[in-house]
Amino acid sequence: MIETDWGALAQDWLDRLAGCSEPGPGVTRLPFTGAHRSALALLTALMEQAGLVVHLDAAGTLIGCCDGPDDAPVLLMGSHQDSVREGGAYDGIMGVVLPVLALQKLRQAGVTLPFAVEVMAFADEEGVRFPTALMGPRALAGTFDMAALDLRDRDGITLRRAMADFGLNPDALPQLRRHPAQVLGWVEIHLEQGPVLETAAQDIGIVTAICGIERHMVTLTGKAAHAGTQPMDLRRDALVGAAELTLAAETLARKTEGLLATVGALQVRPGVVNAVPGEVTLTLEIRAPDDALRERAGAALTQAARDIATRRGLTLQILRSYAQPATPCSPQMIAALSNAAASDGRAGAVQRLASGATHDSSAMAALCPVGMVFTACRDGVSHHPDEHVPPAAMAAGIRTIARFLQQMQPSDQAGA
Amino acid sequence: MIETDWGALAQDWLDRLAGCSEPGPGVTRLPFTGAHRSALALLTALMEQAGLVVHLDAAGTLIGCCDGPDDAPVLLMGSHQDSVREGGAYDGIMGVVLPVLALQKLRQAGVTLPFAVEVMAFADEEGVRFPTALMGPRALAGTFDMAALDLRDRDGITLRRAMADFGLNPDALPQLRRHPAQVLGWVEIHLEQGPVLETAAQDIGIVTAICGIERHMVTLTGKAAHAGTQPMDLRRDALVGAAELTLAAETLARKTEGLLATVGALQVRPGVVNAVPGEVTLTLEIRAPDDALRERAGAALTQAARDIATRRGLTLQILRSYAQPATPCSPQMIAALSNAAASDGRAGAVQRLASGATHDSSAMAALCPVGMVFTACRDGVSHHPDEHVPPAAMAAGIRTIARFLQQMQPSDQAGA
Repeated sequence: MIETDWGALAQDWLDRLAGCSEPGPGVTRLPFTGAHRSALALLTALMEQAGLVVHLDAAGTLIGCCDGPDDAPVLLMGSHQDSVREGGAYDGIMGVVLPVLALQKLRQAGVTLPFAVEVMAFADEEGVRFPTALMGPRALAGTFDMAALDLRDRDGITLRRAMADFGLNPDALPQLRRHPAQVLGWVEIHLEQGPVLETAAQDIGIVTAICGIERHMVTLTGKAAHAGTQPMDLRRDALVGAAELTLAAETLARKTEGLLATVGALQVRPGVVNAVPGEVTLTLEIRAPDDALRERAGAALTQAARDIATRRGLTLQILRSYAQPATPCSPQMIAALSNAAASDGRAGAVQRLASGATHDSSAMAALCPVGMVFTACRDGVSHHPDEHVPPAAMAAGIRTIARFLQQMQPSDQAGA
Repeated sequence: MIETDWGALAQDWLDRLAGCSEPGPGVTRLPFTGAHRSALALLTALMEQAGLVVHLDAAGTLIGCCDGPDDAPVLLMGSHQDSVREGGAYDGIMGVVLPVLALQKLRQAGVTLPFAVEVMAFADEEGVRFPTALMGPRALAGTFDMAALDLRDRDGITLRRAMADFGLNPDALPQLRRHPAQVLGWVEIHLEQGPVLETAAQDIGIVTAICGIERHMVTLTGKAAHAGTQPMDLRRDALVGAAELTLAAETLARKTEGLLATVGALQVRPGVVNAVPGEVTLTLEIRAPDDALRERAGAALTQAARDIATRRGLTLQILRSYAQPATPCSPQMIAALSNAAASDGRAGAVQRLASGATHDSSAMAALCPVGMVFTACRDGVSHHPDEHVPPAAMAAGIRTIARFLQQMQPSDQAGA
């Protein structure tokens, strides 16, 4: 018997799934569309050849089941099938393919698990078509707001109508709710979408938490003036104040483990070559896996902005326009996934890292303990046709999940 | 005999001249228009009541002459009649009114000067209607480029045609050239357009030089990345690099006497809240009354940009897109005008300052020694309907010019 090349097999399935897309560069696969339906057909074939029993739930989540002993709890795994517009072939969907192949690998080896497993392909995580997302995991966790069914896409079609046209019954969504006692946990494998693992020459890493996010809208107002006639010491230049704040954010984040701070957007008024800038608006985004750390950073940078404004005679408006708490991964999950990864014949310690982006796991955390595995990706690129995960990293992900499943006991996550 | 309130008289004339404008806020008086013609009628009346003999030259410059002894050289004074769109009532035209009133004041006092004086109202200094400016003084200096006559305004009318329709003969422009030996010098009085004199509680100040200007277009290119997944130590953030350069420019200018440095325009790409900025373009403008100082500053900031780019892994493009040398005022003119100002009963030393903006004097410097007097203006505002010069400052300007004329000898400027 020839040893299966699991990385190549994953790549083959993902290449075929990438064809389930609207025309154009990269992959565009929005929920409840023809591309979604084509992807479900392929995923069904993949799941069935791995021995899973497949059904589509009322949220449009494709579920491949591997039964366990009677009344055994279930371990949930998976990710989302949808992409952004002109996105890549890995984001989301790879997290469906790899667990299925891990189960196929165990089946080939004749392993029987003492618990049930369900691999899920959620319809919509990116939130590109409708101004909502995460319906699938929220329905499982009982946190889905039925009012979202009335939201419309850019063609005026409601989510409810799109789901009905897809053959689903949105009124049955509340019945999807799972009881926490019946769920062992949730495991998601996803590409990192950043350069940490590639830089560290690691195929995979274990996620410690999904970062919380806060965003501030900052306006610094000074006085526009003639750049030739306004002496330096009489200026109230909003842009130099904004420059100081931008550097303060970078300095704080660089010296604070786990903290990310970004000034992403910045506009200058009047914004002409011969005028001292009178007003600058900018966005300040702060992310951290620890909410207290993020809150302290937000407070420190707000105070820094106040100090800069006072010293420079500027007026400051600062508004925290958005805040989302962090989702810690379960310590037991982190330990179990790290153990599984550590016995993979790798060099060096297992890399642990926080996720800066939101995932299905964020919503699943309301139901059960969650764990995440990241694979390396080329150049840290995602949400782009150039997105790529090396097959060797996908093979490492499959081995790690298979080993995790073999090592796990139904009692491990009880009460976690 | 009641003492004339010269400040109030100047204000009265300027209020009337402000009526010579297109409709709308403030003053809009473009060259070779109906508003220009109305202003020339009023200025002619003003000059004639001061005893001057008035004519319009081929460049559209209104000239009021006060003869001196036969073959005596001539001192030229004045400024421009035109405004920007929706500008103020003082910029330019005040520099015609005040010298005429100074001559009227001397005439009332029975003073006869040992040289001729001509007060000039140039047609176009702002360059708003046609993409050229300073035709009047350039014609006098012999530096006018006749090709500019073919430039068009936004209605497609050539400068040549506009002048002909105004009753002028543009072909006669070369004949306006003056011989330097016949000209004692040029004196211009203008509002400061900045806050220095008002801040120092001074009515007037003496200009040392008109600053040279250089402008750089700077592009810093790093790598756009996801603000949640790109670790701080692996970022190549173009905006934090731009922030460092902005602060470096301010720091250098604040510690260097006479230097002005301004980042006036700045654009960020992609410029969204959750992306590390990949590219920033900005303008860096440097002004100084001393060309060597300005060139050194330009080189130092170019090197600073290179150092920042190298340290941060950014690509730098920097292009010096514009450079205009400084125009030093004549040391004799500075001394004579300072002496005249010093005996005005003022408190403290006469304020000397550089002009950050360009003036008719910049072009007149190609013909003869130039001197400039600045008046204070309210809040440093110009090129705006709120532009205002206190009548007390205008009165101080009139007294200073009158005293300067009385103290000046025809030989003073010879060979300067």
